[in-house]
Amino acid sequence: MASFTLNQLAERLGCSVEGDGAIEIVGVAALKEAVAGDISFLANPKYASQVEATHASAVIVSGDWTGSCSAALLKVPRPDQAFGQIAALFAPAPVPRFKGVHPSAVIGKDVKLGENVSIGPLCVVEDEAEIGEGTVLVGNVYVGYRVKIGRNCLIYAQVSLREYVQLGDRVIIHDSTVIGSDGFGYAVDAQGVRTKIPQIGAVEIGDDVEIGSNVSVDRARFGKTRIGKGVKIDNLVQIAHNVQIGDHAVIVAQVGISGSSSIGEKVIIAGQAGVAGHLSIGAGAVIGGQSGVTKDVEPGKFVFGTPVVKHADYMRSYAIFLRLPEMRRKLAELEKRLSKQAE
Amino acid sequence: MASFTLNQLAERLGCSVEGDGAIEIVGVAALKEAVAGDISFLANPKYASQVEATHASAVIVSGDWTGSCSAALLKVPRPDQAFGQIAALFAPAPVPRFKGVHPSAVIGKDVKLGENVSIGPLCVVEDEAEIGEGTVLVGNVYVGYRVKIGRNCLIYAQVSLREYVQLGDRVIIHDSTVIGSDGFGYAVDAQGVRTKIPQIGAVEIGDDVEIGSNVSVDRARFGKTRIGKGVKIDNLVQIAHNVQIGDHAVIVAQVGISGSSSIGEKVIIAGQAGVAGHLSIGAGAVIGGQSGVTKDVEPGKFVFGTPVVKHADYMRSYAIFLRLPEMRRKLAELEKRLSKQAE
Amino acid sequence: MASFTLNQLAERLGCSVEGDGAIEIVGVAALKEAVAGDISFLANPKYASQVEATHASAVIVSGDWTGSCSAALLKVPRPDQAFGQIAALFAPAPVPRFKGVHPSAVIGKDVKLGENVSIGPLCVVEDEAEIGEGTVLVGNVYVGYRVKIGRNCLIYAQVSLREYVQLGDRVIIHDSTVIGSDGFGYAVDAQGVRTKIPQIGAVEIGDDVEIGSNVSVDRARFGKTRIGKGVKIDNLVQIAHNVQIGDHAVIVAQVGISGSSSIGEKVIIAGQAGVAGHLSIGAGAVIGGQSGVTKDVEPGKFVFGTPVVKHADYMRSYAIFLRLPEMRRKLAELEKRLSKQAE
Repeated sequence: MASFTLNQLAERLGCSVEGDGAIEIVGVAALKEAVAGDISFLANPKYASQVEATHASAVIVSGDWTGSCSAALLKVPRPDQAFGQIAALFAPAPVPRFKGVHPSAVIGKDVKLGENVSIGPLCVVEDEAEIGEGTVLVGNVYVGYRVKIGRNCLIYAQVSLREYVQLGDRVIIHDSTVIGSDGFGYAVDAQGVRTKIPQIGAVEIGDDVEIGSNVSVDRARFGKTRIGKGVKIDNLVQIAHNVQIGDHAVIVAQVGISGSSSIGEKVIIAGQAGVAGHLSIGAGAVIGGQSGVTKDVEPGKFVFGTPVVKHADYMRSYAIFLRLPEMRRKLAELEKRLSKQAE
Repeated sequence: MASFTLNQLAERLGCSVEGDGAIEIVGVAALKEAVAGDISFLANPKYASQVEATHASAVIVSGDWTGSCSAALLKVPRPDQAFGQIAALFAPAPVPRFKGVHPSAVIGKDVKLGENVSIGPLCVVEDEAEIGEGTVLVGNVYVGYRVKIGRNCLIYAQVSLREYVQLGDRVIIHDSTVIGSDGFGYAVDAQGVRTKIPQIGAVEIGDDVEIGSNVSVDRARFGKTRIGKGVKIDNLVQIAHNVQIGDHAVIVAQVGISGSSSIGEKVIIAGQAGVAGHLSIGAGAVIGGQSGVTKDVEPGKFVFGTPVVKHADYMRSYAIFLRLPEMRRKLAELEKRLSKQAE
Repeated sequence: MASFTLNQLAERLGCSVEGDGAIEIVGVAALKEAVAGDISFLANPKYASQVEATHASAVIVSGDWTGSCSAALLKVPRPDQAFGQIAALFAPAPVPRFKGVHPSAVIGKDVKLGENVSIGPLCVVEDEAEIGEGTVLVGNVYVGYRVKIGRNCLIYAQVSLREYVQLGDRVIIHDSTVIGSDGFGYAVDAQGVRTKIPQIGAVEIGDDVEIGSNVSVDRARFGKTRIGKGVKIDNLVQIAHNVQIGDHAVIVAQVGISGSSSIGEKVIIAGQAGVAGHLSIGAGAVIGGQSGVTKDVEPGKFVFGTPVVKHADYMRSYAIFLRLPEMRRKLAELEKRLSKQAE
């Protein structure tokens, strides 16, 4: 375990210590979770009261902080950044990965492996797949026929990359995620019986994308489902066939995006929201949590509700919704007064 | 890569070409995604404007289409069907599958395998399982104790079929899906501490069912969780213990169905909707996206909202909800006028 | 298959038979699903009409039951408990598990295994992991670097336990669940481009926790994501980084809990609900299905809606919401009457 005196940490940050600089710091933690020996930080003034109550031995605060607490203090311009620096010092040793191709992995014919590729235990790599330099498959990973993975990617355990899927460079995919399952497409007859429409397209994922665990990204019916550069996708997200996601978009946990919808650059879709099919979400739009998008959203708009409207409009109506019983009483009263007048 | 002249494609469809039949077609794509060399199609008049703007070299349209565009045209009675036919010509080569039992697969005792079964690399098949003729386990698949799989099924990577699960014929299960995890059942004591109720039932899945990726289907507490013939289930769906799903029902992504509920034939449940426990959804009913079903739904009804009501009723109320600020202003005004009168 | 006479079953329960005690019982089932030869039970008076209609050969009812039916009856004080006892008699044989370490499993360096540990086929156990006495890894399980698993745990197929994750004793984790994927944390620059914040914390799971299939539990940014003793988590649930879940809480399917939120002891969160980040849900609170929690919830409160309010308040407003068209008509009428007066 790493251990530093508070003076040593202050030196790294180029700040001075208020309190005892000789104390040993052995861990990092949030204010509420910290115990003696930990260093913590306050970035959001909303949590100021937690500084007073914390059991941390030291707290990183901003220069203008004036509260009182028993912990020693390090004052810096950006406490969150400073804490990030300090946290890195206490990071556990990087996980050792198997180098080369583990003897238990099953590698197909005509597979191309770049330099320094690591294929961990019990991975399957099917025929004609290509894996770029420096990429790591952790273990129990399935890589399908003719999949192309770029350089320096990190593919965690239990992931499935289906046939013809293409990944850019520095892509991270967390455990148990599936890229390239078939799109949900059927022809329906007059009796309501469905037959499968072959899903013959692929999935293309850009550079620097990170995808969480238990995510499903379907292959295109034809053409490609596309995820742009730098997109970040949280856990348990559903991306249907032929969806197009613009660069640097952010898709939070449990969101679902239906077939052929197009998500603009830098769009943020908050948790559990849903987007219906064949829609277009303009660049920079923000979709609130649990919202249901049923028509196009203009660039830069912040929408909410099911079906979505402007967030502020929804909230105004919702505030009145919560007072509907009062409003109904008033209405009944007016009616009575008017009826009395009429007598 | 496949390549055809437009004349060759027209011949296959039995239609004539409007424009240059000699051009080479090398791919298929949706109107918005197409590039030169692609053929596309217009099925839904809603997207007619995309024909004018498309970069496709040719477009399949219906016989009565009269718009203008720079692409060559193929006119047919059913553009979507015709496009399906053409798309099949450009389909990538079918994925080669390992034939027979891969030497890295682990096969238990007293397992029965039909003819032409393919068990891919690193699959586990536990004791006394039975796998029917022509079925394929792609790779890294887990098949539990006494599981029975029918004929010509396709089980993708990372799937888990738990003990005693039964699949009909021609069932397709996508990657990382779990069939037969324990139902969520506990006895609660007076202190709120839960003890597990053994989940000793199974799951039975009918012929021609397709289940997407990352789906969870729980086994029954006792008896069976049942999924009828021809049912199509999208990704990330939750089917709880003892649920019964009628033939040809459609369950869209991220839907959750709670314990012991019964879903009628040909019911459609749209994305992210939830159904509470012990309910009955009548045949042919449609549950709107993100809806919450808390009581039985009559056959053929289209419901929406949380808790659900008739879709049209919800939408009527929602339209007024969005105008509640205006309504409240009016009410306040009336009150004022009435008070003035009273003075 | 097990088989008992009804008299034999009555003897086990210490009750008498109303009807023919000589009949053979060969299975257990819910009232609606039962066929001849089955025994069923009525616990909830709501389903009393199902007793009359059941095809079960025998039904367990409470002592004061007075309805009529063709099935034989066993009258007991607690029909659900009695049925649980009987169902256990008909339980399928327990699934035989591989004893010891399967030769196809890949075990890293310096792994510590307790007595009677079972590591099934094609599992990976990375370096320095510790697995306690009596724990079972079923098959195709991935156990990461320095993971610690307690005693008598049951880890199903396709599960991934990432580096540094710690499990208590008697923990059950269902198939394809991921514990310890990276939290969703990024630093954003002025152009909206995100860079990853290292997620260097871990996950700690208490004794007697059960976690369903396809669940994602993220590791902490630093410190630990903590799941208390006896917590029960259903399928497809998202637990973000640094979430703290109190003992004996219940998290139903498809719930999402955002980063750093704290869930009190014995809280119940119903299906598909979402909790935003940095919130505190007081002990014993109940969050209704599909609700969206955007501020702290007091202990013991029952809340509902998005954003949540008291359940009763929401329902009162919702009832009026459904009658908004009527309310608007009334308002228009009043306006007209008042205008007429004014003429």
